[in-house]
Amino acid sequence: MTKEQIQECIKACQECATACGQCIDGCLSGDDVKMMAECIRTDIDCMTICQTTAQFMSLNSQFSSDICELCATICEKCAEECDKHADMHDHCRKCAEACRKSAKSCREMASMGN
Amino acid sequence: MTKEQIQECIKACQECATACGQCIDGCLSGDDVKMMAECIRTDIDCMTICQTTAQFMSLNSQFSSDICELCATICEKCAEECDKHADMHDHCRKCAEACRKSAKSCREMASMGN
Amino acid sequence: MTKEQIQECIKACQECATACGQCIDGCLSGDDVKMMAECIRTDIDCMTICQTTAQFMSLNSQFSSDICELCATICEKCAEECDKHADMHDHCRKCAEACRKSAKSCREMASMGN
Amino acid sequence: MTKEQIQECIKACQECATACGQCIDGCLSGDDVKMMAECIRTDIDCMTICQTTAQFMSLNSQFSSDICELCATICEKCAEECDKHADMHDHCRKCAEACRKSAKSCREMASMGN
Repeated sequence: MTKEQIQECIKACQECATACGQCIDGCLSGDDVKMMAECIRTDIDCMTICQTTAQFMSLNSQFSSDICELCATICEKCAEECDKHADMHDHCRKCAEACRKSAKSCREMASMGN
Repeated sequence: MTKEQIQECIKACQECATACGQCIDGCLSGDDVKMMAECIRTDIDCMTICQTTAQFMSLNSQFSSDICELCATICEKCAEECDKHADMHDHCRKCAEACRKSAKSCREMASMGN
Repeated sequence: MTKEQIQECIKACQECATACGQCIDGCLSGDDVKMMAECIRTDIDCMTICQTTAQFMSLNSQFSSDICELCATICEKCAEECDKHADMHDHCRKCAEACRKSAKSCREMASMGN
Repeated sequence: MTKEQIQECIKACQECATACGQCIDGCLSGDDVKMMAECIRTDIDCMTICQTTAQFMSLNSQFSSDICELCATICEKCAEECDKHADMHDHCRKCAEACRKSAKSCREMASMGN
Protein backbone atom coordinates (compact mmCIF):
# COMPACT_ATOMS: atom_id res chain seq x y z
CA MET A 1 0.00 0.00 0.00
CA THR A 2 1.18 3.51 -0.72
CA LYS A 3 0.91 6.17 1.99
CA GLU A 4 -2.04 7.68 0.11
CA GLN A 5 -3.90 4.36 0.14
CA ILE A 6 -3.35 3.96 3.87
CA GLN A 7 -4.53 7.53 4.47
CA GLU A 8 -7.64 6.79 2.38
CA CYS A 9 -8.34 3.62 4.38
CA ILE A 10 -7.96 5.48 7.70
CA LYS A 11 -10.41 8.11 6.45
CA ALA A 12 -12.90 5.48 5.25
CA CYS A 13 -12.83 3.78 8.68
CA GLN A 14 -13.32 7.08 10.50
CA GLU A 15 -16.20 8.12 8.24
CA CYS A 16 -17.76 4.71 8.82
CA ALA A 17 -17.41 5.12 12.61
CA THR A 18 -19.17 8.49 12.36
CA ALA A 19 -21.98 7.08 10.19
CA CYS A 20 -22.47 4.21 12.67
CA GLY A 21 -22.68 6.65 15.60
CA GLN A 22 -25.24 8.76 13.76
CA CYS A 23 -27.17 5.61 12.84
CA ILE A 24 -27.29 4.58 16.53
CA ASP A 25 -28.59 8.06 17.40
CA GLY A 26 -31.22 7.80 14.66
CA CYS A 27 -32.31 4.29 15.66
CA LEU A 28 -32.66 5.30 19.33
CA SER A 29 -34.66 8.42 18.43
CA GLY A 30 -37.23 6.60 16.29
CA ASP A 31 -40.53 4.95 17.22
CA ASP A 32 -39.53 1.44 16.23
CA VAL A 33 -36.49 0.93 18.48
CA LYS A 34 -37.24 -2.76 19.03
CA MET A 35 -37.16 -3.39 15.29
CA MET A 36 -33.76 -1.63 15.14
CA ALA A 37 -32.14 -3.58 18.00
CA GLU A 38 -29.95 -5.73 15.75
CA CYS A 39 -28.96 -2.66 13.73
CA ILE A 40 -27.90 -0.86 16.94
CA ARG A 41 -25.82 -3.92 17.94
CA THR A 42 -23.89 -4.13 14.67
CA ASP A 43 -23.51 -0.32 14.63
CA ILE A 44 -21.82 -0.36 18.06
CA ASP A 45 -19.44 -3.15 17.02
CA CYS A 46 -18.70 -1.50 13.68
CA MET A 47 -18.15 1.97 15.17
CA THR A 48 -15.71 0.56 17.71
CA ILE A 49 -13.69 -1.69 15.39
CA CYS A 50 -13.43 1.12 12.80
CA GLN A 51 -11.95 3.49 15.41
CA THR A 52 -9.50 0.83 16.57
CA THR A 53 -8.51 -0.11 13.01
CA ALA A 54 -7.91 3.52 12.06
CA GLN A 55 -5.67 3.86 15.13
CA PHE A 56 -3.65 0.74 14.24
CA MET A 57 -3.05 2.06 10.71
CA SER A 58 -2.06 5.55 11.87
CA LEU A 59 0.45 3.93 14.25
CA ASN A 60 1.83 1.83 11.38
CA SER A 61 1.14 -1.28 13.48
CA GLN A 62 2.50 -4.68 12.47
CA PHE A 63 -1.09 -5.94 13.01
CA SER A 64 -2.71 -3.48 10.58
CA SER A 65 -3.65 -6.03 7.96
CA ASP A 66 -4.98 -8.50 10.57
CA ILE A 67 -7.32 -5.95 12.11
CA CYS A 68 -8.30 -4.66 8.65
CA GLU A 69 -9.49 -8.15 7.78
CA LEU A 70 -11.71 -8.34 10.87
CA CYS A 71 -12.88 -4.76 10.32
CA ALA A 72 -13.92 -5.58 6.73
CA THR A 73 -15.99 -8.55 7.96
CA ILE A 74 -17.80 -6.47 10.59
CA CYS A 75 -18.38 -3.56 8.16
CA GLU A 76 -19.89 -5.98 5.62
CA LYS A 77 -22.24 -7.40 8.25
CA CYS A 78 -23.24 -3.89 9.36
CA ALA A 79 -23.92 -2.84 5.75
CA GLU A 80 -26.12 -5.92 5.32
CA GLU A 81 -28.09 -5.11 8.47
CA CYS A 82 -28.50 -1.41 7.63
CA ASP A 83 -29.59 -2.27 4.08
CA LYS A 84 -32.73 -3.90 5.53
CA HIS A 85 -33.89 -0.50 6.78
CA ALA A 86 -32.39 1.74 4.07
CA ASP A 87 -35.75 2.47 2.48
CA MET A 88 -37.23 3.70 5.71
CA HIS A 89 -34.29 5.38 7.44
CA ASP A 90 -31.88 7.78 5.80
CA HIS A 91 -29.30 7.17 8.58
CA CYS A 92 -29.32 3.46 7.72
CA ARG A 93 -28.87 4.15 4.02
CA LYS A 94 -25.92 6.46 4.68
CA CYS A 95 -24.42 4.03 7.19
CA ALA A 96 -24.66 1.08 4.75
CA GLU A 97 -22.83 3.15 2.12
CA ALA A 98 -20.05 4.15 4.54
CA CYS A 99 -19.73 0.53 5.71
CA ARG A 100 -19.33 -0.79 2.16
CA LYS A 101 -16.68 1.82 1.37
CA SER A 102 -14.76 1.03 4.55
CA ALA A 103 -15.12 -2.74 4.01
CA LYS A 104 -13.73 -2.50 0.49
CA SER A 105 -10.77 -0.38 1.57
CA CYS A 106 -9.98 -2.63 4.55
CA ARG A 107 -10.26 -5.77 2.39
CA GLU A 108 -7.61 -4.31 0.07
CA MET A 109 -5.34 -3.41 3.00
CA ALA A 110 -5.73 -6.93 4.42
CA SER A 111 -4.84 -8.55 1.10
CA MET A 112 -1.50 -6.73 1.01
CA GLY A 113 -0.33 -8.42 4.20
CA ASN A 114 1.77 -6.48 6.72
CA MET B 1 -3.57 9.09 45.81
CA THR B 2 -1.57 6.02 46.68
CA LYS B 3 -0.83 3.42 44.00
CA GLU B 4 -3.44 1.15 45.61
CA GLN B 5 -6.11 3.85 45.35
CA ILE B 6 -5.32 4.43 41.67
CA GLN B 7 -5.43 0.68 41.00
CA GLU B 8 -8.82 0.52 42.76
CA CYS B 9 -10.15 3.42 40.67
CA ILE B 10 -8.95 1.77 37.43
CA LYS B 11 -10.71 -1.44 38.46
CA ALA B 12 -13.93 0.39 39.39
CA CYS B 13 -13.97 2.11 35.96
CA GLN B 14 -13.37 -1.19 34.14
CA GLU B 15 -16.08 -3.00 36.12
CA CYS B 16 -18.44 -0.13 35.34
CA ALA B 17 -17.62 -0.37 31.61
CA THR B 18 -18.42 -4.11 31.73
CA ALA B 19 -21.70 -3.53 33.59
CA CYS B 20 -22.70 -0.86 31.04
CA GLY B 21 -21.94 -3.24 28.14
CA GLN B 22 -24.01 -5.98 29.74
CA CYS B 23 -26.82 -3.48 30.42
CA ILE B 24 -26.85 -2.45 26.73
CA ASP B 25 -27.06 -6.14 25.78
CA GLY B 26 -29.91 -6.65 28.23
CA CYS B 27 -31.81 -3.54 27.09
CA LEU B 28 -31.51 -4.55 23.41
CA SER B 29 -32.68 -8.11 24.16
CA GLY B 30 -35.84 -7.09 26.00
CA ASP B 31 -39.35 -6.36 24.74
CA ASP B 32 -39.43 -2.73 25.77
CA VAL B 33 -36.44 -1.40 23.83
CA LYS B 34 -38.10 1.96 23.16
CA MET B 35 -38.56 2.54 26.89
CA MET B 36 -34.84 1.75 27.39
CA ALA B 37 -33.53 4.10 24.67
CA GLU B 38 -32.25 6.74 27.11
CA CYS B 39 -30.68 4.02 29.25
CA ILE B 40 -28.84 2.63 26.18
CA ARG B 41 -27.57 6.13 25.36
CA THR B 42 -26.11 6.81 28.80
CA ASP B 43 -24.72 3.25 28.92
CA ILE B 44 -22.77 3.79 25.67
CA ASP B 45 -21.35 7.11 26.91
CA CYS B 46 -20.53 5.67 30.33
CA MET B 47 -18.91 2.49 28.95
CA THR B 48 -16.70 4.55 26.64
CA ILE B 49 -15.60 7.22 29.12
CA CYS B 50 -14.86 4.56 31.75
CA GLN B 51 -12.54 2.71 29.35
CA THR B 52 -10.79 5.95 28.39
CA THR B 53 -10.46 7.08 32.01
CA ALA B 54 -8.99 3.72 33.09
CA GLN B 55 -6.46 4.04 30.25
CA PHE B 56 -5.44 7.58 31.30
CA MET B 57 -4.88 6.41 34.88
CA SER B 58 -2.86 3.35 33.87
CA LEU B 59 -0.66 5.62 31.73
CA ASN B 60 -0.20 7.97 34.69
CA SER B 61 -1.47 10.81 32.50
CA GLN B 62 -1.19 14.44 33.58
CA PHE B 63 -4.91 14.70 32.68
CA SER B 64 -6.04 11.86 34.96
CA SER B 65 -7.90 14.02 37.46
CA ASP B 66 -9.58 16.07 34.69
CA ILE B 67 -10.98 13.01 32.96
CA CYS B 68 -11.92 11.44 36.32
CA GLU B 69 -14.07 14.47 37.02
CA LEU B 70 -15.94 14.11 33.71
CA CYS B 71 -16.17 10.33 34.21
CA ALA B 72 -17.73 10.80 37.66
CA THR B 73 -20.40 13.11 36.20
CA ILE B 74 -21.31 10.65 33.43
CA CYS B 75 -21.32 7.66 35.83
CA GLU B 76 -23.67 9.55 38.17
CA LYS B 77 -26.05 10.33 35.31
CA CYS B 78 -25.95 6.69 34.13
CA ALA B 79 -26.67 5.44 37.69
CA GLU B 80 -29.65 7.81 37.86
CA GLU B 81 -30.99 6.54 34.53
CA CYS B 82 -30.49 2.86 35.39
CA ASP B 83 -32.12 3.36 38.80
CA LYS B 84 -35.41 4.10 37.03
CA HIS B 85 -35.49 0.51 35.71
CA ALA B 86 -33.72 -1.27 38.59
CA ASP B 87 -36.91 -2.89 39.85
CA MET B 88 -37.66 -4.43 36.50
CA HIS B 89 -34.22 -5.23 35.10
CA ASP B 90 -31.42 -6.93 37.00
CA HIS B 91 -28.85 -5.61 34.48
CA CYS B 92 -29.96 -2.05 35.28
CA ARG B 93 -29.70 -2.65 39.01
CA LYS B 94 -26.19 -4.06 38.68
CA CYS B 95 -25.17 -1.28 36.30
CA ALA B 96 -26.42 1.45 38.67
CA GLU B 97 -24.37 -0.08 41.48
CA ALA B 98 -21.20 -0.27 39.38
CA CYS B 99 -21.74 3.32 38.19
CA ARG B 100 -22.08 4.65 41.73
CA LYS B 101 -18.91 2.85 42.83
CA SER B 102 -16.97 4.17 39.85
CA ALA B 103 -18.38 7.69 40.29
CA LYS B 104 -17.34 7.77 43.95
CA SER B 105 -13.82 6.55 43.18
CA CYS B 106 -13.38 8.99 40.26
CA ARG B 107 -14.71 11.90 42.34
CA GLU B 108 -12.01 11.17 44.93
CA MET B 109 -9.30 10.97 42.25
CA ALA B 110 -10.49 14.27 40.76
CA SER B 111 -10.41 16.03 44.13
CA MET B 112 -6.71 15.18 44.57
CA GLY B 113 -5.72 17.19 41.50
CA ASN B 114 -2.96 15.92 39.21
CA MET C 1 -24.07 24.49 16.44
CA THR C 2 -25.39 23.59 13.01
CA LYS C 3 -25.09 20.00 11.75
CA GLU C 4 -22.30 21.16 9.44
CA GLN C 5 -20.32 22.61 12.35
CA ILE C 6 -20.66 19.38 14.33
CA GLN C 7 -19.58 17.35 11.28
CA GLU C 8 -16.56 19.66 10.92
CA CYS C 9 -15.64 19.23 14.58
CA ILE C 10 -15.90 15.41 14.33
CA LYS C 11 -13.63 15.50 11.29
CA ALA C 12 -11.11 17.80 13.02
CA CYS C 13 -10.95 15.43 16.01
CA GLN C 14 -10.47 12.39 13.77
CA GLU C 15 -7.75 14.09 11.72
CA CYS C 16 -6.04 15.07 14.97
CA ALA C 17 -6.21 11.45 16.22
CA THR C 18 -4.58 10.30 12.97
CA ALA C 19 -1.84 12.95 13.18
CA CYS C 20 -1.13 11.95 16.80
CA GLY C 21 -0.85 8.28 15.82
CA GLN C 22 1.54 9.13 13.00
CA CYS C 23 3.54 11.37 15.37
CA ILE C 24 3.88 8.48 17.86
CA ASP C 25 5.10 6.25 15.01
CA GLY C 26 7.59 8.91 13.95
CA CYS C 27 8.84 9.55 17.49
CA LEU C 28 9.35 5.81 18.12
CA SER C 29 11.21 5.38 14.80
CA GLY C 30 13.71 8.16 15.42
CA ASP C 31 17.09 8.14 17.12
CA ASP C 32 16.16 10.50 19.93
CA VAL C 33 13.28 8.57 21.50
CA LYS C 34 14.16 9.68 25.04
CA MET C 35 13.90 13.32 24.02
CA MET C 36 10.47 12.59 22.53
CA ALA C 37 9.06 10.76 25.59
CA GLU C 38 6.83 13.65 26.70
CA CYS C 39 5.65 14.13 23.12
CA ILE C 40 4.68 10.43 22.92
CA ARG C 41 2.76 10.76 26.21
CA THR C 42 0.67 13.73 25.11
CA ASP C 43 0.16 12.14 21.67
CA ILE C 44 -1.34 9.00 23.25
CA ASP C 45 -3.69 11.05 25.46
CA CYS C 46 -4.64 13.35 22.59
CA MET C 47 -5.24 10.50 20.11
CA THR C 48 -7.49 8.72 22.59
CA ILE C 49 -9.55 11.71 23.75
CA CYS C 50 -10.03 12.86 20.13
CA GLN C 51 -11.47 9.44 19.16
CA THR C 52 -13.77 9.43 22.19
CA THR C 53 -14.89 13.01 21.59
CA ALA C 54 -15.68 12.32 17.92
CA GLN C 55 -17.75 9.31 19.04
CA PHE C 56 -19.72 11.37 21.59
CA MET C 57 -20.53 13.98 18.94
CA SER C 58 -21.58 11.42 16.32
CA LEU C 59 -23.92 9.88 18.94
CA ASN C 60 -25.37 13.32 19.69
CA SER C 61 -24.47 12.76 23.35
CA GLN C 62 -25.76 15.06 26.08
CA PHE C 63 -22.11 15.25 27.26
CA SER C 64 -20.70 16.43 23.92
CA SER C 65 -19.82 19.93 25.06
CA ASP C 66 -18.27 18.67 28.33
CA ILE C 67 -15.93 16.27 26.55
CA CYS C 68 -15.18 18.88 23.87
CA GLU C 69 -13.93 21.20 26.60
CA LEU C 70 -11.54 18.55 27.96
CA CYS C 71 -10.50 17.58 24.43
CA ALA C 72 -9.65 21.20 23.61
CA THR C 73 -7.42 21.42 26.70
CA ILE C 74 -5.54 18.22 25.82
CA CYS C 75 -5.19 19.20 22.14
CA GLU C 76 -3.73 22.57 23.17
CA LYS C 77 -1.20 20.89 25.45
CA CYS C 78 -0.26 18.42 22.70
CA ALA C 79 0.19 21.26 20.19
CA GLU C 80 2.46 23.05 22.66
CA GLU C 81 4.56 19.90 23.16
CA CYS C 82 4.80 19.12 19.43
CA ASP C 83 5.73 22.73 18.66
CA LYS C 84 8.98 22.22 20.59
CA HIS C 85 10.10 19.68 17.97
CA ALA C 86 8.37 21.13 14.89
CA ASP C 87 11.63 22.39 13.38
CA MET C 88 13.24 18.98 13.56
CA HIS C 89 10.35 16.61 12.91
CA ASP C 90 7.77 16.97 10.16
CA HIS C 91 5.38 14.64 12.02
CA CYS C 92 5.47 17.00 15.03
CA ARG C 93 4.80 20.03 12.85
CA LYS C 94 1.81 18.35 11.21
CA CYS C 95 0.54 17.07 14.54
CA ALA C 96 0.74 20.53 16.16
CA GLU C 97 -1.30 21.96 13.28
CA ALA C 98 -3.97 19.25 13.53
CA CYS C 99 -4.11 19.73 17.32
CA ARG C 100 -4.65 23.47 17.03
CA LYS C 101 -7.43 23.01 14.48
CA SER C 102 -9.15 20.40 16.65
CA ALA C 103 -8.69 22.49 19.81
CA LYS C 104 -10.28 25.54 18.16
CA SER C 105 -13.24 23.56 16.86
CA CYS C 106 -13.80 21.80 20.21
CA ARG C 107 -13.53 25.09 22.12
CA GLU C 108 -16.33 26.48 19.96
CA MET C 109 -18.49 23.37 20.50
CA ALA C 110 -17.89 23.60 24.27
CA SER C 111 -18.89 27.26 24.38
CA MET C 112 -22.31 26.47 22.87
CA GLY C 113 -23.28 24.24 25.80
CA ASN C 114 -25.27 21.09 25.23
CA MET D 1 -18.41 -20.76 27.39
CA THR D 2 -20.25 -20.30 30.66
CA LYS D 3 -21.06 -16.80 31.91
CA GLU D 4 -18.29 -17.19 34.50
CA GLN D 5 -15.72 -18.00 31.80
CA ILE D 6 -16.72 -14.94 29.76
CA GLN D 7 -16.52 -12.75 32.88
CA GLU D 8 -13.05 -14.17 33.58
CA CYS D 9 -11.93 -13.45 30.02
CA ILE D 10 -13.22 -9.86 30.19
CA LYS D 11 -11.31 -9.38 33.44
CA ALA D 12 -8.11 -10.88 32.00
CA CYS D 13 -8.31 -8.50 29.01
CA GLN D 14 -8.89 -5.49 31.25
CA GLU D 15 -6.03 -6.41 33.58
CA CYS D 16 -3.81 -6.84 30.53
CA ALA D 17 -4.83 -3.40 29.22
CA THR D 18 -3.89 -1.89 32.59
CA ALA D 19 -0.53 -3.71 32.69
CA CYS D 20 0.24 -2.49 29.15
CA GLY D 21 -0.58 1.11 30.10
CA GLN D 22 1.65 0.89 33.15
CA CYS D 23 4.41 -0.69 31.03
CA ILE D 24 4.21 2.22 28.54
CA ASP D 25 4.48 4.65 31.47
CA GLY D 26 7.48 2.74 32.82
CA CYS D 27 9.20 2.52 29.42
CA LEU D 28 8.75 6.26 28.80
CA SER D 29 10.08 7.14 32.28
CA GLY D 30 13.29 5.14 31.94
CA ASP D 31 16.69 6.11 30.59
CA ASP D 32 16.72 3.64 27.73
CA VAL D 33 13.58 4.72 25.85
CA LYS D 34 15.08 3.94 22.44
CA MET D 35 15.72 0.34 23.47
CA MET D 36 12.08 0.10 24.61
CA ALA D 37 10.54 1.51 21.40
CA GLU D 38 9.30 -1.85 20.11
CA CYS D 39 7.93 -2.68 23.55
CA ILE D 40 6.00 0.62 23.62
CA ARG D 41 4.57 -0.16 20.15
CA THR D 42 3.26 -3.61 21.07
CA ASP D 43 2.00 -2.26 24.43
CA ILE D 44 -0.13 0.38 22.67
CA ASP D 45 -1.60 -2.20 20.27
CA CYS D 46 -2.19 -4.71 23.05
CA MET D 47 -3.76 -2.16 25.43
CA THR D 48 -6.16 -1.02 22.71
CA ILE D 49 -7.22 -4.44 21.39
CA CYS D 50 -7.72 -5.71 24.96
CA GLN D 51 -10.11 -2.83 25.73
CA THR D 52 -12.02 -3.40 22.50
CA THR D 53 -12.19 -7.16 23.03
CA ALA D 54 -13.48 -6.75 26.59
CA GLN D 55 -16.17 -4.41 25.24
CA PHE D 56 -17.25 -6.90 22.53
CA MET D 57 -17.59 -9.66 25.12
CA SER D 58 -19.55 -7.52 27.59
CA LEU D 59 -21.95 -6.61 24.74
CA ASN D 60 -22.32 -10.31 23.89
CA SER D 61 -21.25 -9.48 20.33
CA GLN D 62 -21.60 -12.02 17.53
CA PHE D 63 -17.95 -11.19 16.71
CA SER D 64 -16.60 -12.00 20.18
CA SER D 65 -14.70 -15.11 19.18
CA ASP D 66 -13.22 -13.44 16.07
CA ILE D 67 -11.82 -10.52 18.03
CA CYS D 68 -10.65 -12.87 20.83
CA GLU D 69 -8.56 -14.72 18.26
CA LEU D 70 -6.86 -11.51 17.10
CA CYS D 71 -6.48 -10.34 20.71
CA ALA D 72 -4.76 -13.61 21.66
CA THR D 73 -2.25 -13.19 18.81
CA ILE D 74 -1.41 -9.60 19.82
CA CYS D 75 -1.17 -10.50 23.53
CA GLU D 76 1.24 -13.34 22.70
CA LYS D 77 3.42 -10.99 20.65
CA CYS D 78 3.41 -8.40 23.46
CA ALA D 79 4.34 -11.06 26.05
CA GLU D 80 7.24 -12.11 23.81
CA GLU D 81 8.45 -8.52 23.49
CA CYS D 82 8.11 -7.75 27.21
CA ASP D 83 9.90 -10.99 28.12
CA LYS D 84 13.07 -9.59 26.52
CA HIS D 85 13.20 -6.89 29.20
CA ALA D 86 11.62 -8.79 32.12
CA ASP D 87 14.94 -9.13 33.96
CA MET D 88 15.57 -5.41 33.89
CA HIS D 89 12.10 -3.93 34.21
CA ASP D 90 9.46 -5.02 36.70
CA HIS D 91 6.71 -3.39 34.58
CA CYS D 92 7.76 -5.60 31.63
CA ARG D 93 7.71 -8.73 33.76
CA LYS D 94 4.22 -7.94 35.09
CA CYS D 95 2.98 -7.00 31.63
CA ALA D 96 4.27 -10.26 30.08
CA GLU D 97 2.43 -12.23 32.76
CA ALA D 98 -0.83 -10.35 32.22
CA CYS D 99 -0.47 -10.77 28.43
CA ARG D 100 0.00 -14.53 28.72
CA LYS D 101 -3.05 -14.88 30.97
CA SER D 102 -5.19 -12.79 28.62
CA ALA D 103 -3.86 -14.66 25.54
CA LYS D 104 -4.73 -18.03 27.07
CA SER D 105 -8.23 -16.95 28.04
CA CYS D 106 -8.90 -15.34 24.64
CA ARG D 107 -7.57 -18.41 22.80
CA GLU D 108 -10.10 -20.54 24.70
CA MET D 109 -12.95 -18.12 23.90
CA ALA D 110 -11.94 -18.13 20.23
CA SER D 111 -11.90 -21.92 20.08
CA MET D 112 -15.55 -22.11 21.21
CA GLY D 113 -16.77 -20.17 18.17
CA ASN D 114 -19.59 -17.68 18.51
